Amino acid sequence: MKVLQDSKALRTALSDFRKGDKGIGFVPTMGYLHEGHLSIVRQAKKENRVVIVSIFVNPLQFGPKEDFWRYPRNLVRDKALLEREKTDFLFVPALKQFYGPDFQTVVSVKALSQPLCGITRPAHFTGVCTVVLKLLNNVMPDTLYLGQKDYQQFRVIEQLVKDLDFPVKVRMAPIVRERDGLAMSSRNVLLSSIEREEAAFLYRALQKAEAFVRAGARDAAKIKKMMREELKFIRHGREDYLEIADAATLESVVKLRSGTKILAALAVFFGKTRLIDNTLMTVE
Amino acid sequence: MKVLQDSKALRTALSDFRKGDKGIGFVPTMGYLHEGHLSIVRQAKKENRVVIVSIFVNPLQFGPKEDFWRYPRNLVRDKALLEREKTDFLFVPALKQFYGPDFQTVVSVKALSQPLCGITRPAHFTGVCTVVLKLLNNVMPDTLYLGQKDYQQFRVIEQLVKDLDFPVKVRMAPIVRERDGLAMSSRNVLLSSIEREEAAFLYRALQKAEAFVRAGARDAAKIKKMMREELKFIRHGREDYLEIADAATLESVVKLRSGTKILAALAVFFGKTRLIDNTLMTVE
Repeated sequence: MKVLQDSKALRTALSDFRKGDKGIGFVPTMGYLHEGHLSIVRQAKKENRVVIVSIFVNPLQFGPKEDFWRYPRNLVRDKALLEREKTDFLFVPALKQFYGPDFQTVVSVKALSQPLCGITRPAHFTGVCTVVLKLLNNVMPDTLYLGQKDYQQFRVIEQLVKDLDFPVKVRMAPIVRERDGLAMSSRNVLLSSIEREEAAFLYRALQKAEAFVRAGARDAAKIKKMMREELKFIRHGREDYLEIADAATLESVVKLRSGTKILAALAVFFGKTRLIDNTLMTVE
Repeated sequence: MKVLQDSKALRTALSDFRKGDKGIGFVPTMGYLHEGHLSIVRQAKKENRVVIVSIFVNPLQFGPKEDFWRYPRNLVRDKALLEREKTDFLFVPALKQFYGPDFQTVVSVKALSQPLCGITRPAHFTGVCTVVLKLLNNVMPDTLYLGQKDYQQFRVIEQLVKDLDFPVKVRMAPIVRERDGLAMSSRNVLLSSIEREEAAFLYRALQKAEAFVRAGARDAAKIKKMMREELKFIRHGREDYLEIADAATLESVVKLRSGTKILAALAVFFGKTRLIDNTLMTVE
């Protein structure tokens, strides 16, 4: 695995792989890798000639009171994990070089950034769009891989790529879960053991939504009420949001219409640590 | 000259030229071409293997009360002029296809977009950034050519390219002037004959600034006062702004320090038509 810190070196290294028919797969991450990330790397390995992973904890996507400094980091461990997956390239941009002193450009996808995570994190997706756009220009991949756990992020970036005519395919990789159903996240290590136990109820709430929809429930208010019954078991955390939304527009849904694709999504704060999870359903 | 309306066709057409060492030169325009544009095309022809010009009157960069509908257009004439220059490709995106119904992405270069034209046109450079970014992703040129007449636009795009790591060189082409010194602009045809005559005083004001600086003037307020003496000859127009600014940051300058690069810039309204002009000076 070649590790690169600099745009120019990166472009030179990748230029040999631009001509093939399978192409370059790119997996952007903030590091502290877990099985969720690694499963994406494996998928990318299958579908591409070369795979490049980036590790960059992007300050622009953290709010002033958020956990940028607390966000877990371990580059030595991450490198070992990526070597084991036979990752071809690792891009680790240096923060000061990546955002120069006169950096002042902002990229934003408007409507899709407002609901769900956008309510408590108003500048978050602007930071995400800006960094992903920069990374795309550095890596110039054929396919960009994003995880479903951050579904809103996936939709925002999918729209960004479409709106701005980036010549890249955007693929969504499935959520990987712990045994008790908790979605894998680098932030899970920040939970106390009691919080970690209660965190399993995020997925239980989603499973309940799935079961109700499967059983014919079509009233979003009722489904959300049933989901909140599960969240009551969380005594050391508090709900940030819980929503049933249109999977394409992310707008809140009142009645689930058959044939539509629906997102059930939620966020829960455990102290300063905020966990998110979601599930996608096609209404029959 | 190949004329293309569609991103995919464009990429296919250009792909053959991506390997050479001289590369692809790109000249984005809003059409209604004049000698200023054509001189840029000629420069691009000299410096590149192929030259692609785009014509697109971009609604995003016009304010709600501005002249989008009045902006002069003549594609037949433009094509003939570009053929004569042996332009290789002309990209004419179709408006509805270029900005889809769910288009919602915004790109903005913050500090550089605020002063000068940004004061009366607060959303203008956001529209410019968004369209240029899209055009760059469509054309993927090696060199992007922009005219000095829109110097603030040049600086904004230069910063955009730097901030977002676009792999493209940005080159500024000199202003081309009419006999009386008026900077060539597609909007000049919108002037009445009396306005057209008075419009020459924009450049006279700039020449005065140049002469004063050459003679040792270092007080920006005094230089601006002398420039305004020239603008007094304009009786059918009104000043929008007149500024002495740092050429890199576009921030207003009080004292001209030796060794610095300075921009003298102004904008004048003739009815609804707004003309701009500028000159760059290195203070000795």
